[in-house]
Amino acid sequence: MAEVRNKQVILRDYVTGFPKESDMNIVESTITLNLPEGSNDVLLKNLYLSCDPYMRILMNKDLPPELSNRSYSPGSPITGYGVSKVLESGHPDYKTGDLVWGTTKWEEYSLVPATQILFKIEHTDVPLSYYTGILGMPGMTAYAGFFELGSPKKGENVFVSAASGAVGQLVGQFAKLHGCYVVGSAGSKEKVDLLKNKLGFDEAFNYKEEPDLNAALKRYFPEGIDINFENVGGKTLDAVLLNLRLHARIPVCGMISQYNLTQLEGVTNLPSLLFKRVHMQGFNVSDYYHLYPKFLEYLLPHIREGKVVYVEDIAEGLENGPAALVGLYSGRNFGKQVLVVAHE
Amino acid sequence: MAEVRNKQVILRDYVTGFPKESDMNIVESTITLNLPEGSNDVLLKNLYLSCDPYMRILMNKDLPPELSNRSYSPGSPITGYGVSKVLESGHPDYKTGDLVWGTTKWEEYSLVPATQILFKIEHTDVPLSYYTGILGMPGMTAYAGFFELGSPKKGENVFVSAASGAVGQLVGQFAKLHGCYVVGSAGSKEKVDLLKNKLGFDEAFNYKEEPDLNAALKRYFPEGIDINFENVGGKTLDAVLLNLRLHARIPVCGMISQYNLTQLEGVTNLPSLLFKRVHMQGFNVSDYYHLYPKFLEYLLPHIREGKVVYVEDIAEGLENGPAALVGLYSGRNFGKQVLVVAHE
Repeated sequence: MAEVRNKQVILRDYVTGFPKESDMNIVESTITLNLPEGSNDVLLKNLYLSCDPYMRILMNKDLPPELSNRSYSPGSPITGYGVSKVLESGHPDYKTGDLVWGTTKWEEYSLVPATQILFKIEHTDVPLSYYTGILGMPGMTAYAGFFELGSPKKGENVFVSAASGAVGQLVGQFAKLHGCYVVGSAGSKEKVDLLKNKLGFDEAFNYKEEPDLNAALKRYFPEGIDINFENVGGKTLDAVLLNLRLHARIPVCGMISQYNLTQLEGVTNLPSLLFKRVHMQGFNVSDYYHLYPKFLEYLLPHIREGKVVYVEDIAEGLENGPAALVGLYSGRNFGKQVLVVAHE
Repeated sequence: MAEVRNKQVILRDYVTGFPKESDMNIVESTITLNLPEGSNDVLLKNLYLSCDPYMRILMNKDLPPELSNRSYSPGSPITGYGVSKVLESGHPDYKTGDLVWGTTKWEEYSLVPATQILFKIEHTDVPLSYYTGILGMPGMTAYAGFFELGSPKKGENVFVSAASGAVGQLVGQFAKLHGCYVVGSAGSKEKVDLLKNKLGFDEAFNYKEEPDLNAALKRYFPEGIDINFENVGGKTLDAVLLNLRLHARIPVCGMISQYNLTQLEGVTNLPSLLFKRVHMQGFNVSDYYHLYPKFLEYLLPHIREGKVVYVEDIAEGLENGPAALVGLYSGRNFGKQVLVVAHE
């Protein structure tokens, strides 16, 4: 039984406020690359790890009960979505050599219960890293949020915040494919250019250069917003509420602007929900994974034909993981932030 | 053509902040009790007028476009829901002597387009005033909000704010009939007693005596709230957001706490929508009137058998209208506030 090095990204302590690289440690532990006798678990070699905004929430000490079973523990590796190769399996659904995606740990090798694996990867003519993004959790999130909760109709007006991120860039492209008018906001000139020139958004703006978000939205949506795909919350949401059309929908995918605040921002314009008869729904992709086969059937041909593109920001090596993860909250990433542990 | 006196309640000027009796004038104009030649309109004798929280919004100068066609005009009578008798009709759907309910003006006699009449009153074995409340707009609001948007299941936990009001008292009784646990909040000891002893709420509390609304809700809902029927907004909503169960529903019927504020309160706990995967929906009863026959079929037997009761606070005479209406915003009313113009 060969013991090998198992580099890990460990949470040092619970986090308050903005996370820093130093909130995590890189340690070298060891692991035996054999499944324990009689185990039903699966031994994984981790290839690509996903950096996702929700991970900050799991660094909090006190979590809502719904999330507490997923809380990170100081001294242990953090967890997240990832693409992995099965080295050995005690579970009949998986066998050595399978490529899978699901929840794994931020380390080179992980022993996980089979229930943490979400899907076997069947299509490898696209980059494997895509299963942390466009073909993984963020992709399914964009798909379920936009189509299932957004109930889009051709010609409707769609606003996407954090529009160049892992989810936002897809929502915008889905909206265009569906015949909608779509405007995105992002935090730099380069991201705005990306949205307009590569991702096909009708318009885009840099929210950091808009002192009056309400005025900015009025400029781009003189007739109001039918679907607001909510990724950021706070001030942006407050401005959106003043610019909704009757019967607007707000799928609430995230509120990244609030995750690092010890005092949350107050949203004042909620009476608009009433006047505009708005449907606002918080959701978690885990309620929608039964749609994954339908989602692949829809999206894979678009990817192969180049009708949907996906921008990844790739960091190499576990030791660069903390910086990659922390960068999400300052908007340092350009597109979906992926961390490569090993290429195969 | 006999000219008769037509007493009216006139808006003096647009209102800022809390409305005062003096924002309205009682004037005596005259009206000819004949339909103009060739008119398709309906001449009404107004019997019962409904005092409803939304009316404050229509006193604002600047309204969202969705509401601007209903805005009150300084110098003209205010409008609202009411029960009226048809004196003369130029429209084939109505004839002299019909009792109807719908939108009318705060005056003794009104000439209205037939489209403002919502329903003919067919059942007169219940008090006519009920068609301003339990069998009118507030009743349909409670029914549509609770059953259509709340999607209640037996055994679920329901919270109702402004629970002794026109809508709240019904939501609580519907919840009990449906096998739910229901707690209401109201603004006085008498109202709390009413909720517990007459209206069948499982528990009730006086929000004015709860310095920590979050703690109060935790006390009554140790396992969380499945349906929050939102009538008040602001601080109460913010506390509710901390006490929701997974997949909770929030039908947003009103936000009365915000209608008189020039600076709206900020609601900080919206990330709960995400963590609890909450469905929050603003609605307007006008989208649900097609359910009115089904609603009557459900509710009339319950009223006749005494299984659903309804508390009205009855003011007599148009000259007492301004005080009755203004009283809604300080919670002076005890149950549904009705204004009697004439008993028949």
